Amino acid sequence: MEKFIQTYQDYRKKIKAYHYFGWLMSWDQETEAPDQSIEYRTKQFQVMAEEMYKIESAPEYIDAIDHLYANLDHIQDQDFKTEIKRAYKQLRVIKLVPKDELIAHQVLVSQASHTWAKAKNENNFEMFRPILEKIVEFNRKLVKYLETPELKGYDILLDEYEEGFTQKEYDLFFNTLKTELVPFVKEVTAKKQKFSRKLTHSVFPREQQIKFSQYLIDVFHYDRSRGLLKESAHPFTSGVSSTDTRITTHYYENNLVSSIFSTIHEMGHAIYELQNDPKYDDTYLHGGTSLGIHESQSRMYENMLGRSKAFWTVHYPKLVELFPKQLKHVTLEEFHRYINRAERSLIRTEADELTYALHVMVRYELEKGMISGKIKVKDLPKKWNKLMGEFVGIKPKTDKEGVLQDVHWSGGMLGYFPTYALGSAYAAQMYQAMNQELNIEEALSSNNILAINAWLKEHVHQFASSKSPKEILLIATKEAFNPMYYVNYLKNKFQR
Amino acid sequence: MEKFIQTYQDYRKKIKAYHYFGWLMSWDQETEAPDQSIEYRTKQFQVMAEEMYKIESAPEYIDAIDHLYANLDHIQDQDFKTEIKRAYKQLRVIKLVPKDELIAHQVLVSQASHTWAKAKNENNFEMFRPILEKIVEFNRKLVKYLETPELKGYDILLDEYEEGFTQKEYDLFFNTLKTELVPFVKEVTAKKQKFSRKLTHSVFPREQQIKFSQYLIDVFHYDRSRGLLKESAHPFTSGVSSTDTRITTHYYENNLVSSIFSTIHEMGHAIYELQNDPKYDDTYLHGGTSLGIHESQSRMYENMLGRSKAFWTVHYPKLVELFPKQLKHVTLEEFHRYINRAERSLIRTEADELTYALHVMVRYELEKGMISGKIKVKDLPKKWNKLMGEFVGIKPKTDKEGVLQDVHWSGGMLGYFPTYALGSAYAAQMYQAMNQELNIEEALSSNNILAINAWLKEHVHQFASSKSPKEILLIATKEAFNPMYYVNYLKNKFQR
Repeated sequence: MEKFIQTYQDYRKKIKAYHYFGWLMSWDQETEAPDQSIEYRTKQFQVMAEEMYKIESAPEYIDAIDHLYANLDHIQDQDFKTEIKRAYKQLRVIKLVPKDELIAHQVLVSQASHTWAKAKNENNFEMFRPILEKIVEFNRKLVKYLETPELKGYDILLDEYEEGFTQKEYDLFFNTLKTELVPFVKEVTAKKQKFSRKLTHSVFPREQQIKFSQYLIDVFHYDRSRGLLKESAHPFTSGVSSTDTRITTHYYENNLVSSIFSTIHEMGHAIYELQNDPKYDDTYLHGGTSLGIHESQSRMYENMLGRSKAFWTVHYPKLVELFPKQLKHVTLEEFHRYINRAERSLIRTEADELTYALHVMVRYELEKGMISGKIKVKDLPKKWNKLMGEFVGIKPKTDKEGVLQDVHWSGGMLGYFPTYALGSAYAAQMYQAMNQELNIEEALSSNNILAINAWLKEHVHQFASSKSPKEILLIATKEAFNPMYYVNYLKNKFQR
Repeated sequence: MEKFIQTYQDYRKKIKAYHYFGWLMSWDQETEAPDQSIEYRTKQFQVMAEEMYKIESAPEYIDAIDHLYANLDHIQDQDFKTEIKRAYKQLRVIKLVPKDELIAHQVLVSQASHTWAKAKNENNFEMFRPILEKIVEFNRKLVKYLETPELKGYDILLDEYEEGFTQKEYDLFFNTLKTELVPFVKEVTAKKQKFSRKLTHSVFPREQQIKFSQYLIDVFHYDRSRGLLKESAHPFTSGVSSTDTRITTHYYENNLVSSIFSTIHEMGHAIYELQNDPKYDDTYLHGGTSLGIHESQSRMYENMLGRSKAFWTVHYPKLVELFPKQLKHVTLEEFHRYINRAERSLIRTEADELTYALHVMVRYELEKGMISGKIKVKDLPKKWNKLMGEFVGIKPKTDKEGVLQDVHWSGGMLGYFPTYALGSAYAAQMYQAMNQELNIEEALSSNNILAINAWLKEHVHQFASSKSPKEILLIATKEAFNPMYYVNYLKNKFQR
């Protein structure tokens, strides 16, 4: 036993070091690497990826995991037990999927986003279709290889991104949204809102926006000695340990609020990982437990804290100070209405808080159909437009603004999208629970975000991925998942 | 033979990938990594360093090099021959130095700079003395282990940093400087120069300095698609391939010209590596051939091009445009005199072009004495002050401004300093040669730095480290090293 533990830990240490390299390379690439540096770096990365594969698939390492899994009952440490269960689960792919098929798929998806980008750019779904067909085909085979008595089909993919959440749960969730939210959104968005041209047509200099984002770092107590804010084409968070989790944002001079809410959103992700118990840093348990829980944190910071009246009562004067001309005569009330406007739109990433989940529903229905075989890839554009009409109430005129808009499928990621909607629903449920122990509005009004960070650390963040999403939710809210918190939150907020 | 070549190339490929990781980590650490991230990253680095050591000392790899070296005559490719010779030479350390001693030394120097910094800070040489004694002692043993009939003692260390340059050559060089330069410097620096308070006492906003550095990138055609300019505490260049060589500078708001000449200096280093023939990227021959040749390029760009009247005739108006208040009534002539002022000073890194080499001479004499055993570490401060008085004509009042000022010795680097002086002398000789084929002043006056880059590419840069410093000098100038070019250049420039 001791021997297997030692072997496991030795391998883990190495794997973490290679992972660190991959992490740093991708951070560099996304934030500053010169354009022409890609070819050389890719070569180096390939060498390292081969080394990494050798280590991860070493019979000695696999043996150790198998042995430890077979003797789970003799392991005292709960965290270690969890880690071994996960490691064992992840071995399934190496053990059950033929290596040739796996590698062929990896090669395919490593190049697919390039074709996807071209197809999107040229509004040409047919260009992307053959590749997407192969990706779907591989995933249909994959779920066959991996199926167990408990998990089959699309459930296997869903479980990959959100442990324990299957179609049954998602169907319940999305049916609730369909019943409760679809008619509500139609009602709310029927009335057009108007805002001062000062908000919608001013120029907001980059330098001033940077200053405000830097100000927000202090407001939210995102620790500069364990993170940093940089710029990239698309905002993202990139964390490797509880002492190093970095974020990016993007500044648009014709849009004051885009950078603000990107910064807050990414800080939500980052604070989650920075508040992980440091004891997990050297294990596989560091980081968020699932995409849904991760998104719940970013969306809570962005939407529930960052778009609240209480928050802006404290911080709007600072914004006016930085943009005195642009915000002259724009009242706090109007600004608050502006950052909480809702409207039917075509692009998921630009959708507002109210309509966002409906965009996700479209993708969920399509993925379900593709994996079950009921929907053919060639019929996707038509199906997409139909569902958009049904759920969001608006249909795209081009595939570029429709089925081609997201990168995920080209990366082989099926089962990922639903977590986006789930995150917002988790957030609403957690907010409710937190608000019973802590007056959140009061904390925001007194600029005491530390108290909020502390609550989330105790009830969510510290556990890193040592608990499943369902366990986290139960710890934090003392209830199982209930989408009505989300529905009620949205109805309460957007009722006009 | 084929088998050994294959083995060699396989190992080289891996070693280059690990080297890439080390390069990226250090770039990140020096330019942006959050303070508290160090511990975790160091752990990952240690794992990788162990992997790297295993690969570099693999018997199979060493065998391959030994075999190829023994059969050099059968290798057709000149570059490959050069590479094998170097690789074989580098194996000496692994083969001849007892592993225990080597590792003990590596551990010592990995921690020594910490003690050095403390000692410097507290102006306490005694604190640093015991460590420096051990470092010197190791180096005295090291040269015994590595000595050959041709190379002994300090020559071995000098050759490590500047292949083919021994005490004999350096003695000739520094004796020339002693005879020609020491009295000249005394004469020139006796007259105090005065400059407008606008230059010496204005505030020069960071943002404007950044704009000028960005402007300089275009002027010098430092390729943004293969490099970038960032900020760090101490400016440096960090290159890994002909498609990725990055630089940093540092902006001081009370000093207009520091960032300008740091940026130009580092661009000199970077353009050298970016103009290496790309065929060397996958070999050990990419990069500068020696510290001296590297420094010759940075100093030529900084001092000979960047501080010239012809250059500023074109670019001073741009500087005035960015600092209209600060430079009002400051003429081009006064600015040009200001950036070429010379004075006796204590700190090497802040010394001007004229006096710089004399600072280096002090260190050369001391290193020579330490390795031969004629100078004891405990006597260093006294000896330092004496030599400073002799060569530079000024004596430090504290060790902080004296023997403790440089980090190099704490890093175990003895034999490095002389290359700094050699670089400037190479530059003067190369400038002369280039000027016979290309009217440099005219190129500068017509803002045609591309022509200068092109000449240097053809005569110096393209060769990367496939030629020795002496070979490069011969190709570029058709002569052996002659320090009188440097002496004449300085006398001509600083004669008042």
